[in-house]
Amino acid sequence: MSEFEPIEGGGVTSAQGFVAGAVCAGLYARGPKAGQLDLALLFSERECTTGGVFTTNLVRSAPVGVTESRLDAGNLRALIVNSGCANAPFGVDGTADAEEMTEMAARLVGVPARSIGVASTGVTGVLMPMDKVRAAAPLIKLSREGGADFATAIMTTDTKRKEVAVRVRTAAGEYTIGGCAKGSGMIHPNMATMLAYVTTDAAVEQSLLRRLVRETADATFNMLTIDGDTSCSDTFLTFANGAAGLPRIETGTPEAAQFERALRHVCEQLVRQLARDGEGATHLLVVEVTGAASVADARLMARTVGLSSLVKTAVAGSDPNWGRVLVAAGRSGAQIDTLKARVRLQGELLFDRGKVVEFDEEQLSGRMAADEVCIELELGLGDGAATAWGCDLTTDYVHINADYRT
Amino acid sequence: MSEFEPIEGGGVTSAQGFVAGAVCAGLYARGPKAGQLDLALLFSERECTTGGVFTTNLVRSAPVGVTESRLDAGNLRALIVNSGCANAPFGVDGTADAEEMTEMAARLVGVPARSIGVASTGVTGVLMPMDKVRAAAPLIKLSREGGADFATAIMTTDTKRKEVAVRVRTAAGEYTIGGCAKGSGMIHPNMATMLAYVTTDAAVEQSLLRRLVRETADATFNMLTIDGDTSCSDTFLTFANGAAGLPRIETGTPEAAQFERALRHVCEQLVRQLARDGEGATHLLVVEVTGAASVADARLMARTVGLSSLVKTAVAGSDPNWGRVLVAAGRSGAQIDTLKARVRLQGELLFDRGKVVEFDEEQLSGRMAADEVCIELELGLGDGAATAWGCDLTTDYVHINADYRT
Repeated sequence: MSEFEPIEGGGVTSAQGFVAGAVCAGLYARGPKAGQLDLALLFSERECTTGGVFTTNLVRSAPVGVTESRLDAGNLRALIVNSGCANAPFGVDGTADAEEMTEMAARLVGVPARSIGVASTGVTGVLMPMDKVRAAAPLIKLSREGGADFATAIMTTDTKRKEVAVRVRTAAGEYTIGGCAKGSGMIHPNMATMLAYVTTDAAVEQSLLRRLVRETADATFNMLTIDGDTSCSDTFLTFANGAAGLPRIETGTPEAAQFERALRHVCEQLVRQLARDGEGATHLLVVEVTGAASVADARLMARTVGLSSLVKTAVAGSDPNWGRVLVAAGRSGAQIDTLKARVRLQGELLFDRGKVVEFDEEQLSGRMAADEVCIELELGLGDGAATAWGCDLTTDYVHINADYRT
Repeated sequence: MSEFEPIEGGGVTSAQGFVAGAVCAGLYARGPKAGQLDLALLFSERECTTGGVFTTNLVRSAPVGVTESRLDAGNLRALIVNSGCANAPFGVDGTADAEEMTEMAARLVGVPARSIGVASTGVTGVLMPMDKVRAAAPLIKLSREGGADFATAIMTTDTKRKEVAVRVRTAAGEYTIGGCAKGSGMIHPNMATMLAYVTTDAAVEQSLLRRLVRETADATFNMLTIDGDTSCSDTFLTFANGAAGLPRIETGTPEAAQFERALRHVCEQLVRQLARDGEGATHLLVVEVTGAASVADARLMARTVGLSSLVKTAVAGSDPNWGRVLVAAGRSGAQIDTLKARVRLQGELLFDRGKVVEFDEEQLSGRMAADEVCIELELGLGDGAATAWGCDLTTDYVHINADYRT
């Protein structure tokens, strides 16, 4: 179906000229991640153009500030990331630590610290254990095969690595685009998910890349909601290094449109993997709104329904409770008229413009036990459309978050 | 401490001239409420002034529309309420059913249907079983002792009745103000909680009462958040019938200020009872924001922190995770500067203007096991202040809502 060829086992180092690696710095003192990979480095062997978006939270981790200001000043070609400690929310001390981490990376890869980004994810309110980072960073070994280790090391409560890569055929030849992501709680639109990185060996004009990263984030990562909590560390970066040797992709060309589709495809795949692995999740929840008065309305309503605790618990219980869907839609702030709206669950029409439709509750409940549950709202008001991705709310979400530190 | 004298066991019929009663109409076919009271009537033996506020959800239950339009046209003096079915979201059919319910009440109490309000709470998406209501309504017996039955009949997933009443001493004599409320899930600001009714035998000028009801709702019911889902049925009504025989309370007098304090006290007590009985709750969560740039900012931040799934699960786990508090505050949309902000938990300072404060985690965790957990955010930006009330998020919340219908 896809116009892109999937790369089995592909990820953030599938595109040519990207290498990565990870080590265990011992940043997790206890718990299931103790002794696992927790410090990682991604590097482009060539100059890149780079685009990025960051959390909108006013309480930001120090690394976000460091990375954003470097991206404002130029392009990045390496990234050092740790899990186990978010380096937040600290002002001056945290910034010095984050900057020192980029200097460690600079010594390893031989490019100036100003072209290196940094990210930290994990528990907030604890200063970075810099002695451990200083001891471990020089031990990182970079390779083309290191993408999976990189994707593993950035995980926190994630139970699975999130990776994807595809090959894109153009008239001039092929390029590759791939990525990885992490994040399982504290995930909500108004920035990307917690951490997501995409690399490509296409050459992409810088202003085009930066615009596409923003627009793609709005349609994908910003439509992902797990628990409504926007992290202070959210970061989505895309690196384009041109190693495939194809002509540079410029604004307004068919190649730009194709690259946009490829970037969106990769991000959508990562979003689906993130939602499916939401803390405690047993179902991927997809909410599609069509016929809205505007795209903004469609996005608002899709996210509100996808975040509703009552909708999410109904999905957990395989309960075809479409009333909760309509009530969540009604409080979203987006325009709705129940006399024009239709609600579908797993493709089955349950509410039709003010009227309840008879259905076999037991049979539909059985179909909701599927891995993926789809809610459709057709508003009949205009042509605004949007999709949101989320997951169900289960007792395991509560266990994970009530017992995270203690 | 309070300037008002509590009335032991008081409620919605403590004020003179109010009677109530309830019957079992069989609106719950199954579950723990089957065979319990589910249809109730409240009546003022005298004319009243009445104020009310209703859900802001665009998907509204039919009874909300009926009650609001009658309140727009005049005052109410009776109210028929059922639990077990929300009569939502239906347009024409639901409205006819809601109107018929007020006609049943009119026959019982001998006043025109246009001065009778109606409310329905329970499962959405099911038409009112009107045959059962028609059979049961005439059997309701009204009495001064009926307040507790009324408060019981309007409960859904509530585990406890919510009632309060106090005596207010004035120079001219005493009056009484009391009320009841219900609601345990689908509770979020942007309207009162699901259903709350206050009665008083004070005489209150109509425009004063209506203004005070709106302002009090903003400071109390609209600061209550259990799961972020605004119901389509939310209703808060206050009836003042003057039966105490005191002079009418007029705008701008000391008596008006005292009545406002009394109304707020009663509503705050109901809000605390509602929050404490939030679905699955084991702790009452109180979030106090001071030093905000504005009252609007303080309210926004207090509600956002009180609704954060990560804060709520931390409270469930007695985890003094103040980092989550700060991160939720940062995404609220309200102004915050971490270099000026302080965070306290159970009175203990944990974050002080950009710096972490050392504390005994085990000891504080022990103190968080208390029935009531208090989070304080002192922003150092201005003099905006607000309090929000909520509860922790536990596995029982998920059980209750995943298994509500199935």
